[in-house]
Amino acid sequence: MLNDKGLLLIISGFSGAGKGTIINGLINKYRDRYTLSISATTRGPREGEVEGISYFFKTKDEFTTMIENDELIEYANYVDNYYGTPKKYVDESLESGKNVILEIEIQGALQVKEMYPQAVSIFIMPPSAQILIKRLLERGTEDLQTIKKRMTRAQKEGMRAKYYDYLIINDDLQQSIDSVDRIIRCEHMKCKRNFDLIDSINKEVYELTRGD
Amino acid sequence: MLNDKGLLLIISGFSGAGKGTIINGLINKYRDRYTLSISATTRGPREGEVEGISYFFKTKDEFTTMIENDELIEYANYVDNYYGTPKKYVDESLESGKNVILEIEIQGALQVKEMYPQAVSIFIMPPSAQILIKRLLERGTEDLQTIKKRMTRAQKEGMRAKYYDYLIINDDLQQSIDSVDRIIRCEHMKCKRNFDLIDSINKEVYELTRGD
Repeated sequence: MLNDKGLLLIISGFSGAGKGTIINGLINKYRDRYTLSISATTRGPREGEVEGISYFFKTKDEFTTMIENDELIEYANYVDNYYGTPKKYVDESLESGKNVILEIEIQGALQVKEMYPQAVSIFIMPPSAQILIKRLLERGTEDLQTIKKRMTRAQKEGMRAKYYDYLIINDDLQQSIDSVDRIIRCEHMKCKRNFDLIDSINKEVYELTRGD
Repeated sequence: MLNDKGLLLIISGFSGAGKGTIINGLINKYRDRYTLSISATTRGPREGEVEGISYFFKTKDEFTTMIENDELIEYANYVDNYYGTPKKYVDESLESGKNVILEIEIQGALQVKEMYPQAVSIFIMPPSAQILIKRLLERGTEDLQTIKKRMTRAQKEGMRAKYYDYLIINDDLQQSIDSVDRIIRCEHMKCKRNFDLIDSINKEVYELTRGD
């Protein structure tokens, strides 16, 4: 049987490209096979946020200790607060056979690839810049000036898309969800992930041919 | 739009693992997307074999010239005859958007990967050695002694399965056909195959954010 350990799946992409929607759709559709990594943070819980589901809420001291003990896969500091990915939750989920999704930016993605070279990375892009602007405007939460700033950042991130394994052009939500799932199914078939199985079939062939 | 150039697909595996059946099934099911590479050979045509469909039939001189002119992707000599893969047919098919299937053994596969590093390689294995023997016996064309020899060779080839990109355990024919197709669809989404698209979306974003 093919290796059924979960895979670590890094998802990045332009804001407005639809990362969050794809990830939610994927988890809703295949709840038994995918789970979202839970971040640790030093910022206080907002209304409705639940410890161990929304985030692992930590004090600065606790967070610093996690860094020192190498308990984080990656971490970063935004607006005076730490955010990071605890290794323990990820490893336990992978062992249980679930594919763990990390939605992070490029710097984090590169850190993760160093610690988990077997991780699979996907970059999500909109079909065109026009569509990206249209989607950001439709959200209605930002003015054109802010959106342009966001686009400038998007463009910088886009330069790094080439470091990712797979590209998904998010034209159709359902198709994008299925593409992510198809990629993960294919990655499970990689020879490098199935050395034990290859060895065991070879050994069995060897033993059958040896006798006589 | 994702890169729609065809991919070169190397398929190897134990004899009796079902390579040929999978390849035929794939071509029949997706005739517009897959084609089988046509080999050149110096052996004479057998009854029913058609030039340019079964093989490209060549004299030894013609074949030697093809080798000298670097017109072959890989070649080998079996029982005093040359067999090889002409580059021209493969390249033309790839350009036309078809995925080209090469059914070759490990030595040829390594040669191909050198000339076409973008090629995708798949190794087909039976679910178990017992099933492999059973299938070979059911063919009814070989005695147990010959089958054991074949298995010994299989075991040597199996040692190299780790050099391939993907492993397919051929348990169910239809599933194996779909797995090959799914792998090819995913490979088309690889970032490394879509640098032009990534550049063009980034350029468009850049131009939209610059003007204001």
